[in-house]
Amino acid sequence: MVNGIDRPLDLLNSAKGKEILVQLKSGKQFVGTLLAFDIHINVVLDGAKEVEDGEQRTSYGLTFLRGDTIVFISPSAN
Amino acid sequence: MVNGIDRPLDLLNSAKGKEILVQLKSGKQFVGTLLAFDIHINVVLDGAKEVEDGEQRTSYGLTFLRGDTIVFISPSAN
Amino acid sequence: MVNGIDRPLDLLNSAKGKEILVQLKSGKQFVGTLLAFDIHINVVLDGAKEVEDGEQRTSYGLTFLRGDTIVFISPSAN
Amino acid sequence: MVNGIDRPLDLLNSAKGKEILVQLKSGKQFVGTLLAFDIHINVVLDGAKEVEDGEQRTSYGLTFLRGDTIVFISPSAN
Amino acid sequence: MVNGIDRPLDLLNSAKGKEILVQLKSGKQFVGTLLAFDIHINVVLDGAKEVEDGEQRTSYGLTFLRGDTIVFISPSAN
Amino acid sequence: MVNGIDRPLDLLNSAKGKEILVQLKSGKQFVGTLLAFDIHINVVLDGAKEVEDGEQRTSYGLTFLRGDTIVFISPSAN
Amino acid sequence: MVNGIDRPLDLLNSAKGKEILVQLKSGKQFVGTLLAFDIHINVVLDGAKEVEDGEQRTSYGLTFLRGDTIVFISPSAN
Repeated sequence: MVNGIDRPLDLLNSAKGKEILVQLKSGKQFVGTLLAFDIHINVVLDGAKEVEDGEQRTSYGLTFLRGDTIVFISPSAN
Repeated sequence: MVNGIDRPLDLLNSAKGKEILVQLKSGKQFVGTLLAFDIHINVVLDGAKEVEDGEQRTSYGLTFLRGDTIVFISPSAN
Repeated sequence: MVNGIDRPLDLLNSAKGKEILVQLKSGKQFVGTLLAFDIHINVVLDGAKEVEDGEQRTSYGLTFLRGDTIVFISPSAN
Repeated sequence: MVNGIDRPLDLLNSAKGKEILVQLKSGKQFVGTLLAFDIHINVVLDGAKEVEDGEQRTSYGLTFLRGDTIVFISPSAN
Repeated sequence: MVNGIDRPLDLLNSAKGKEILVQLKSGKQFVGTLLAFDIHINVVLDGAKEVEDGEQRTSYGLTFLRGDTIVFISPSAN
Repeated sequence: MVNGIDRPLDLLNSAKGKEILVQLKSGKQFVGTLLAFDIHINVVLDGAKEVEDGEQRTSYGLTFLRGDTIVFISPSAN
Repeated sequence: MVNGIDRPLDLLNSAKGKEILVQLKSGKQFVGTLLAFDIHINVVLDGAKEVEDGEQRTSYGLTFLRGDTIVFISPSAN
């Protein structure tokens, strides 16, 4: 599973098209399908849903998340 | 719907002229028509309205939002 | 009204000499006539007045506002 | 009064040798004579005095204020 | 044990493939196997687990941690 | 006293070898003899003492203070 | 003792191999032997111990501390 991750962004690259969990500094979490990211860790999710205490609250659909608000990103199916 | 989003800014580019939702770090949300953005994620909305708890509170009309105050941006009609 | 706004700073440029509303991260708002701005969104207002809860409190006259303290800017007469 | 202010720093340049009010992010205010500034908005005041609730509290004399702690600067005699 | 650490990143390089403890600014701690890092101190952990008060709470598997949220990193087996 | 201060760092340069007061963003103050500084406003104090409510609390001797934690610096004997 | 400190980083250079005290923005303090540092003030300590209220709490051994979380650094034996 960890083959080919030499640099941190390699993980994000391998997660394109898959569902990821994004933890924000505000304490909120988003789940959605990773469509795109850049070196600032700005990401675009498709089917983005806000999660609080494990429950999905609000659906936002296509969403741009600004990189400097992100704490961690985890592909949810690993 | 997700065709052509290779980089995060592609989503903003495709949302020009459409209504978007902007979440600020302060907790406030704005809705309005996206007129312009730049690489700092500074955005200009037309018909900007502040939203709190799902209700539209204050109308600001044309508004410049500074990029470093933004958490996420979602085209509201996706 | 929105003609000619291709980049976010175009809005500030078109607002020169007009009254604008500036929201600061601290929660305070200023109104005044926009005299100058730069790419850091540093702005100079003439006749700057601090506003709290919709009431004008303190008059500062000519005032330099540091860009990184600004959340949004809205020309008040749009 | 506003002649010659094309860029934000022009206001600071025209205020050299005059008394200014400096609002810090911490909520404190300083008054003093502006001796020098740079592009980071670092400033040096002569006869710097801390102001709280409109009253002058502590005198610091010559003082270097770091630019990233500043919210706004207003020449007090405009 | 401390041989070969001339620059701070040398410690992270020597910890690749080993378990590390990561302290975040939010107060949370993660443990996991260090797979990759970059000059921004972005890191990728395998088998990442959130730790609170010494107890492992949530398992995230492969996880990307953004560098600017990190306080310190300690290889846990030194 | 103010001769020769054309740029903000000139004040720090003229204060080398003299006692200065350093206000930190955390609210703490340090006094000590300024030995060195750089463009980030990182400073080294000799005989550094932490001050709280005007009383000297802890002595640290030679101390490196990181520039981005500093609010203002005042040579204490002006 | 203060010979040879022309620039702030000279103090850190002279402290290599010696015990230092590191104050973090979170309020925590670390003590340990300074092994390495860089221009971002990232540091590596050997035998790092967290200190709270003057008491040593947790031992972390070799530890990488991210520079932007540091308030001050003091060689403890000066």
